[in-house]
Order: sequence, then C-alpha cells, then structure tokens
Amino acid sequence: MKKIKIGIVGYGNLGRGAELAIQKNSDMELVAIFTRRDPQSIEAEQKETVIEKLDNIQSYANKIDVMILCGGSASDLPSQTPDIARYFNTVDSFDTHAKIPEYLNVVENSARQAGHLSLISVGWDPGLFSMMRILFSSVLVSGQTETFWGKGVSQGHSDALRRVKGVQNAVQYTIPSTESIEAVRKGERKNLTAAQKHIRECYVVLEPNANPQKIEKAIKTMPHYFADYHTEVHFVTEEVLKTQHNKLPHGGFVFHNGETNRSNKQNLEFALQLDSNSEFTASVLVAYARAAVRLYNEGARGARTVFDVPLSYISNKNLQELLKEL
Amino acid sequence: MKKIKIGIVGYGNLGRGAELAIQKNSDMELVAIFTRRDPQSIEAEQKETVIEKLDNIQSYANKIDVMILCGGSASDLPSQTPDIARYFNTVDSFDTHAKIPEYLNVVENSARQAGHLSLISVGWDPGLFSMMRILFSSVLVSGQTETFWGKGVSQGHSDALRRVKGVQNAVQYTIPSTESIEAVRKGERKNLTAAQKHIRECYVVLEPNANPQKIEKAIKTMPHYFADYHTEVHFVTEEVLKTQHNKLPHGGFVFHNGETNRSNKQNLEFALQLDSNSEFTASVLVAYARAAVRLYNEGARGARTVFDVPLSYISNKNLQELLKEL
Repeated sequence: MKKIKIGIVGYGNLGRGAELAIQKNSDMELVAIFTRRDPQSIEAEQKETVIEKLDNIQSYANKIDVMILCGGSASDLPSQTPDIARYFNTVDSFDTHAKIPEYLNVVENSARQAGHLSLISVGWDPGLFSMMRILFSSVLVSGQTETFWGKGVSQGHSDALRRVKGVQNAVQYTIPSTESIEAVRKGERKNLTAAQKHIRECYVVLEPNANPQKIEKAIKTMPHYFADYHTEVHFVTEEVLKTQHNKLPHGGFVFHNGETNRSNKQNLEFALQLDSNSEFTASVLVAYARAAVRLYNEGARGARTVFDVPLSYISNKNLQELLKEL
Repeated sequence: MKKIKIGIVGYGNLGRGAELAIQKNSDMELVAIFTRRDPQSIEAEQKETVIEKLDNIQSYANKIDVMILCGGSASDLPSQTPDIARYFNTVDSFDTHAKIPEYLNVVENSARQAGHLSLISVGWDPGLFSMMRILFSSVLVSGQTETFWGKGVSQGHSDALRRVKGVQNAVQYTIPSTESIEAVRKGERKNLTAAQKHIRECYVVLEPNANPQKIEKAIKTMPHYFADYHTEVHFVTEEVLKTQHNKLPHGGFVFHNGETNRSNKQNLEFALQLDSNSEFTASVLVAYARAAVRLYNEGARGARTVFDVPLSYISNKNLQELLKEL
C-alpha cells in the first residue's frame, strides 16, 4: 500500500513529537521538516530525516499529502495556515479558543479556493476534550459537563511567578482538587468556580537575600493568578527545579452527570494523564493527518474540525478489524 | 424547524428508555411505539404516546424519519432489522459481538436495496466503548487497551446462580477489581485475565431448609462462571433482594496506556457509571437516530456503525455552538 506522505512545519517540542509519532504509524512516511532556522543547526530525532528551509516549501507541492503545522497559535498559525493551505492539505492545533470561529473562516476561504482540506484545532483541548463534551451532551441531554485541567504546568502562571521581585526561577502546576473531582464524580456540587476546581502549586527559586515570607505573600495575594485559589508555595534550589520539574506534564478530566429519569443517575468520565503534553498533542495531530488525506481523497475541501471526522477515518484498521472492536 | 419524527419498535426496558430520551430532545417527536403485544395492555410513560400493533408498521412508511429498534439481539433483531429497513431508516443496539459482521451484511443488503440507512450496534458496548478503543489506539499507536465491566448485574451469571439446587432467587454483580484498575491506571500489569480484572458478588435467597455451606461451595466451584474468579456469596432474604437489588446498574472502564518516547507515558481513560443500563443505551440510540436522519438526508444508504458517524451529526448544536466547545 502507498504510504501517506507527511511534512512537518516547525520543529519545536510539537514538531519533534510529530516526528516521533509518524515513526509509530506504519502507513506513513515523513518526507521533510520545514523550519525558519538554519537546517544545519537542527538535530532531528532520526538521522535520515530531511530538514528544509521553510522558504522551499512550495517545491514540495506534489510530494506531500498533508502538512502538520507545529507552530504557535499566537504568532505563527494565524498567518501560516491560510498561506500553506494554498499548496497543501493541513492539520493544526490552533488553540486560542476565542479566535477559533475567525480562524476557521480564514482557513476555510484559503483551503477551499485552492482546493485543499484543512483540519483545524486538533489536539486534546481543543480536540479530544471538545469531542467528549459534544458526545456526552448529545447522548445525555439533561446532564451537566465539568472540565478539570491538570496536573499540568501552566506557562502563564509560571511566567507570573518569575515576574515577582526576588524570584529567580519558578514552575507552577495546576492541580485539580481531589475533593471537587470526587464531588463531581458523584454528581454533587454543580457550577464550581475555577478556584474551587483547581489548586496552584508553585516551586520557586529565590534570588540571593530575597525574603521568603514577603515573596510567599506577594504570590498568594496576586490578583487573577493566585489570590482566588488555594495556592501552595515551595521554595527549592535551582538544581531541584532543573532536575525534578523539567517535564511538561498535563492532562485533565471531562465529567458529565445527568439523569435519564427521576431516580437514575448516569455518570460519564474521560481522563488524560500525560507525561508530555506536546508529544501527546503531536500524536493526535498525526492520527488526524490520516483523516485529512482520506477526506481530501473523497473530495472534501475547505476547513473542518474534529467534530466532522468519523473515527474510522483516523484509524489504520480496516473494516473487519474495526468490527472486532464493536 | 421541522422535528425529527421517530418510531420505537418494542416496548421493554429499552423502548421505555427511548421514549424518555426522546422527550429530552427538543428537535424530536415520538410518532408511535410498535409492539407485538395488545396496545391496550400497555401503559406508556406519557399518556399521549400512540401505541400501535407491529403489524401496522408499514402504514407509517412516510410518517416516520427513523425507527429505533428496541428488540433483543438474540431473537428479535436478526430478522426484524432487515425487514424493517425495507420501509424505514433504523437504529439498533445489536450486541452479539461475534455475529456483528454477518448482521452488518444482512442489514446492508436490505437497507441499500430499499434505499434506506441503518445504524447498527449503537449503545455503550458495543458503541461508546468501541469508539474509545478506536480513538485511543489511533492517537496512541504504541499503547495497550484494557476494558473492565461493572459494577453491573450480569443476567447470565444471575441465571447460573438460580439453577443451583436450593437457590430460590439470586442476583450477580460483576465488579471490576480496584487493585487491577489501579495497576492499569499506572500502566502496570498488562494482559490481565478476566478473572484478574473482575470479582463476582452474589446475592442469594435460599429455599427453605437449603444448606448454605453446600450451596456456597457449589457456586464457588462452578466452572466457567465462578471457579476462576474471586467470588463472594451473600445470603439475603427475598425482600432484601427485591428492594435493594432491583435495579440494573452497569458501566465500566476503557483504559489505554502507551508511550510517545522511551520515558513519556500517556494514559487515557473512559468510564461509565450507569444506574440504568437500558435507559442509558436508549439515550445513545436516540442521539444516533438524529445522525441516521442527517446521513440519510445527505444521501447515505446501507448499513453503518458508530465509527462512520462524525460527532457533529449526533449533536443538536449548530456550528457556532459546536465551535464554542473547541
């Protein structure tokens, strides 16, 4: 069988994860990685991986079935995706929630005009979590959905810690409250606030001569970021931070509780615990790259989301194998 | 907006659950329930529900968009579905796993010839659990999937208990082993046997003068059903059985653990805890009835499974509302 030919645009954590994930899918091959950096300066996961200047991407127009876009949502994807969709089918993980409708429109126009297919906002949130919220609320209409995030590193909150005077370095974990999770799992305590659902755990390295009491207070009273939350502050050395808090774990839970009649409660739950946020997101992108090519081959054009993709399209199993899972 | 016109065939626990679920979906209306019994003998959940003899079903051929088939997999659906698919779009919960490929073929032939669409084997297992197994193994190729069932009543095992001499009545719960679940959640202990994954809890009412020691031994040594499992036997009165063990709860877990590189573990989990197995299954059928009508309106014909249905098709939300969940 002909393999699906894939390109990767951008080679940060996400691009590296996509390279790893493509290796695990026997029906795919990585044609090239495209980067703005000097290709010579990059060491890929595999020796044989071709690394090209992003400027050369158009010369691959007929050599790649789908391009996995691994740039950032803030500054890369809004301009990159509509541009690349003129030459390739694309899959991306655009995750600026408020701007998704606008982004969908722009990518739709570009992809449809050029006769390509783009799957946008693929990953786990947006992505798998979104799918669960739609699945759960469709099969159990009367219920209520709650999403919890973590345990995971929040870049925004880690940055906020590092801006506190006297803080040399810091990592912040968002941790779902065990108590709130248990309550939601039992169908109790609806409409929880973000502060009731999550606690904030801070690992902080002090600058020499900094005052720990003063810094702890400054953190715990910081509006928006920490003041409304149960916040724990742990002072550690730079070495501990570098060796014990150097991963980017994430995950979370989607709960849906409802009733089918007065007395029958039905509880649905989806949970992810990820050692590497970016590698998992990349794995999801790679599965949906398969779907993008199949949809394109069937004539689909324009921009789509995970809600438009049947599960058989992301799977490498044939019909007989799929039926075994029923 | 025009409502989706739905019929229900069969009015046991599942049919009753479908009637309840249709009420909760504002874009649907129940046209009639079809039964082999005397319609006069049936009291529906709602006074206004129309109950018809199954023999009259053909006279509704242009009045119903989709028929939800609530008969049993053993004796009703294999003949009923291909028959009814000649006149209507259908959704069913056929769950005899080994016979699904054969069933798909028969229904496909009938529905395609008549120009209708049939969604088969919809529910939670087969159904939502099957979808999770495909989703998980597609986004995390290197992982291993484990399914646990329960806590739930097993009709087959309850029947086996009632066949023991001296047993007057009994209910058997299949309960997933907490220890095995915790191990799988951590990514440990792969390839567990069914006996390692589940324990069997039996509530038994003795006949007068029956010997409890003898009966407990007969149960715990019964091959296939109990001998290989950790089995607990509790003797109770008929009244306790009737009042405390009269529900049909079920549920279970689908776990998938894998790695994206040597050191990064990724854990995915889906869980259901259902007070009423049949009402939840019916709720899933009703959501997929919406999808069946939409697929049919787009020109789809023949037999399909949950793997072929995009999530947007089961949802009552429009595109703008869907995008909010991303």
